[in-house]
Amino acid sequence: MQKLEQVYEGKAKKVFATDDPNLFIVDYKDDATAFNGLKKGTIAEKGVINNRVTNHLMKLLESKGIPTHLVKELSDRETLVKKVKIVPIEVIVRNIAAGSLSKRLGLPEGTKLARTVLEYCYKDDELGDPMINDYHIYAMQLATSEELATIAAYSFKVNQILTDYLKDLGIELIDFKLEFGRLADGTIVLADEISPDTCRFWDSKTGEKLDKDRFRRDLGGVEDAYHEIMKRLLGE
Amino acid sequence: MQKLEQVYEGKAKKVFATDDPNLFIVDYKDDATAFNGLKKGTIAEKGVINNRVTNHLMKLLESKGIPTHLVKELSDRETLVKKVKIVPIEVIVRNIAAGSLSKRLGLPEGTKLARTVLEYCYKDDELGDPMINDYHIYAMQLATSEELATIAAYSFKVNQILTDYLKDLGIELIDFKLEFGRLADGTIVLADEISPDTCRFWDSKTGEKLDKDRFRRDLGGVEDAYHEIMKRLLGE
Repeated sequence: MQKLEQVYEGKAKKVFATDDPNLFIVDYKDDATAFNGLKKGTIAEKGVINNRVTNHLMKLLESKGIPTHLVKELSDRETLVKKVKIVPIEVIVRNIAAGSLSKRLGLPEGTKLARTVLEYCYKDDELGDPMINDYHIYAMQLATSEELATIAAYSFKVNQILTDYLKDLGIELIDFKLEFGRLADGTIVLADEISPDTCRFWDSKTGEKLDKDRFRRDLGGVEDAYHEIMKRLLGE
Repeated sequence: MQKLEQVYEGKAKKVFATDDPNLFIVDYKDDATAFNGLKKGTIAEKGVINNRVTNHLMKLLESKGIPTHLVKELSDRETLVKKVKIVPIEVIVRNIAAGSLSKRLGLPEGTKLARTVLEYCYKDDELGDPMINDYHIYAMQLATSEELATIAAYSFKVNQILTDYLKDLGIELIDFKLEFGRLADGTIVLADEISPDTCRFWDSKTGEKLDKDRFRRDLGGVEDAYHEIMKRLLGE
């Protein structure tokens, strides 16, 4: 497999073409951003941890029936994935109120939600990834109703699988962000990453935050938290 | 019917108890606010116009099968309505992009939406009426899924009825806000008002704004626009 030209650079990852037109290589960076890019920094080894944690969780999800873009981990920071066109919708799954939800709806952080909440945001940095609903998605033709039904069903299933898995490791899954992509034939698969960058993980016993909120909120111990997640998930 | 103590004062209306425990009297004010109360002013005769326009449209909707809170117009500014508990959700129905939608999603004002958009906002002045979706509504227990299905179906039907009716009067219905209430037995009925305060009305030929955007955006001719709407709808 040959790594060819860079086709995309995001805040936390680069994506490269390969000599196979159906495959991409994702390369994870240590760069960290928050508040729609207003806060910038670096988290040492984050790229390695997020690459490995993401692949570990994607494998788990594949084994439980969620199709993902994962093909094979190539190195500490590089992973071979199926080429997808990203659906421009960020799906946020929330079990416990935290972050923007707490602020917007006046629900104290830590409030257990009576039902799991799905939120959709329109992936557009210039607009600040605004929240949208099903009707906006259809009006802007971001996804068909069949695609959105698939995305919602997968999101709820991912939540169930990850919540159960993490509970056994002493981690409470507060909320997380997913992105989906379309393969060449239109099949919807889970893409992007699942990591302390994109999830809120709280220690089940102490409530300690083990995720990017330590960076966003200047809580210190950022690298330790990322390492702790890798240790609990991968045993090292 | 005796008008008793005031039970509520909103930005544009006061509500009074009556000697019948199932009935309220709504009293329309000339006070105008915008941007969640940041901008304040007065629009002469607005209370009279909004009272009469609302009742005219509520009667039309009742005749087409939408249950409303309307009982009887009592005077220029006062209307007898069924007592309801307002469902704390503002329903915004959008046919053409304008206002906050244009800003949030980067759609130029006047863009025809491929499908009618419904938005829900949580009625909470302190939080600035934040946008919410179905999942938030269930998680916060603001309405049941049966109630929300009823509210959405009524909203789409109201849109169809009003769009058709106004088109014949040379008015394009761009978007509007609805509120619903629960009667003592739980029945959902349309409540609040339908007026140039709560709708965007554009002249079909000239595109001239005939609604509160003239006040919000300091366009001048505010009173004339309100009078023009009353003239077209009520023939006076």
